[in-house]
Amino acid sequence: MPRRPYLTNATVNLTQEVEVMDERGRISKIFIPAERPLTVYVDKRELVTLMTLGGAPEALTLGYLRNQRLVRSIEDIESITVDWEVEAVAVKTFSGIADVEERTSRKVVTTGCGQGSVFGGLMDEVERITLPPDARLRQSTLYQIVDTIRTQQSIYKQAGSVHGCALFSAEGEMLYFVEDVGRHNAVDAIAGRMWLDDVGGGDKVFYTTGRLTSEMVIKGAQMGIPFLLSRSGTTQMGHMVAERLGMTLLARCTGKHFLALSGRDRLIMEPHLAEVLRVA
Amino acid sequence: MPRRPYLTNATVNLTQEVEVMDERGRISKIFIPAERPLTVYVDKRELVTLMTLGGAPEALTLGYLRNQRLVRSIEDIESITVDWEVEAVAVKTFSGIADVEERTSRKVVTTGCGQGSVFGGLMDEVERITLPPDARLRQSTLYQIVDTIRTQQSIYKQAGSVHGCALFSAEGEMLYFVEDVGRHNAVDAIAGRMWLDDVGGGDKVFYTTGRLTSEMVIKGAQMGIPFLLSRSGTTQMGHMVAERLGMTLLARCTGKHFLALSGRDRLIMEPHLAEVLRVA
Repeated sequence: MPRRPYLTNATVNLTQEVEVMDERGRISKIFIPAERPLTVYVDKRELVTLMTLGGAPEALTLGYLRNQRLVRSIEDIESITVDWEVEAVAVKTFSGIADVEERTSRKVVTTGCGQGSVFGGLMDEVERITLPPDARLRQSTLYQIVDTIRTQQSIYKQAGSVHGCALFSAEGEMLYFVEDVGRHNAVDAIAGRMWLDDVGGGDKVFYTTGRLTSEMVIKGAQMGIPFLLSRSGTTQMGHMVAERLGMTLLARCTGKHFLALSGRDRLIMEPHLAEVLRVA
Repeated sequence: MPRRPYLTNATVNLTQEVEVMDERGRISKIFIPAERPLTVYVDKRELVTLMTLGGAPEALTLGYLRNQRLVRSIEDIESITVDWEVEAVAVKTFSGIADVEERTSRKVVTTGCGQGSVFGGLMDEVERITLPPDARLRQSTLYQIVDTIRTQQSIYKQAGSVHGCALFSAEGEMLYFVEDVGRHNAVDAIAGRMWLDDVGGGDKVFYTTGRLTSEMVIKGAQMGIPFLLSRSGTTQMGHMVAERLGMTLLARCTGKHFLALSGRDRLIMEPHLAEVLRVA
């Protein structure tokens, strides 16, 4: 196990109750998800402000630094200290971030919910990624994953308007579940937890409620995960990147339904399982 | 009418047909939306790369510069030239953008789909915005707007995975409809068109299929629009900003249903209209 940085365990309210009026003039109360700024300081230098639900600020910060390739190893980080009083997180590194100015200068405003800004060079890096060719996913495991998400307690069920991301083992065991106002924060928080627990992606399955845009597929590839599942759809560039990497992209995963868009050779099809629902 | 910049009218495919396999192993073809980079150069200086569907690149570029407050008047812009061959748009200004370095340095990674990066100072500016207190919206007009969107031809109906934004008159006439892989591109493209046509927001209604996060509410406020409607929900900060500005925020607008979260005094309620559906 690598050395873990010191982390706070900052907590904050994730929902708020508000009064609403409906089409008949009836007043009631509903919950809406929190959305708050978290300004990231690295060695006292302001880096970025993330708009987040606030459920996993330390893991989010760590995963953001990882997925933006600003930090190469978790052992470079001494501490991550979140203080919601000032809506800030202080990251202390052992030896600083090299060329941080240069590496944060090129902005790509992505199509992703939640985390827009990806700094330069990610696409170049993608070309060098190889995903395990022998990884396999059974249709029965896929159904188990979709059902686990369906029955998962969530902010979404209480307040809506958030995206959920989860990491599963190839046997369908849920390892992490993170929600955020943007799915890109959720995927970064999972990347952060994988680093903290020294968990690799090669034998894992990633699930998101959000769309598989290019940035989501690229982040999945960066984490070395061969299987990306979504309740939603994908885009042309997300599809193109997955095809190029031989990544298995499954969209519209609900109930017994799914659409395999790429990497079909990794699927162990059990089509008779799809029939069960029709009979039942 | 202000002087309009020279604009190209660049077109590109907005969908792609791809082969998919479903849960029974059946092969078919579906359409997915395009997603492509558009790198913005202002006076030959690279500013940002937007990931976009590609339906309205000139208006998107103009609206991005407007909503980021990088350009104060459309008359500062001489030309906007899109070239999909090189996935770039060249913006020529008459006198350059002042302090562009400084003004693009602070990054806020927002929760919005599509356009993540909002440069510093927007929240400060929001405090100074006043929305017309006497603007009103009839429940019948609201229903007309929702029905217009429901029957609108769209990339969404063909390929899914895109967000739609539209601007309506207070009488319910649709002025603009823009879709993009991110709703923030769609709202920026509408802001660009409003500038090109010298259209003010004070007597308009803005509709989005996406969530009303803080960035969407702030952009609506910047355009001076008192009514924001969404098929989806809102967040705590979106709600907070709308309350502070007395903006009328309507979420979950589908069929005859809606939830008024703020600025209810601007609504002319006609609750009997909500009953019609139940009877019918």
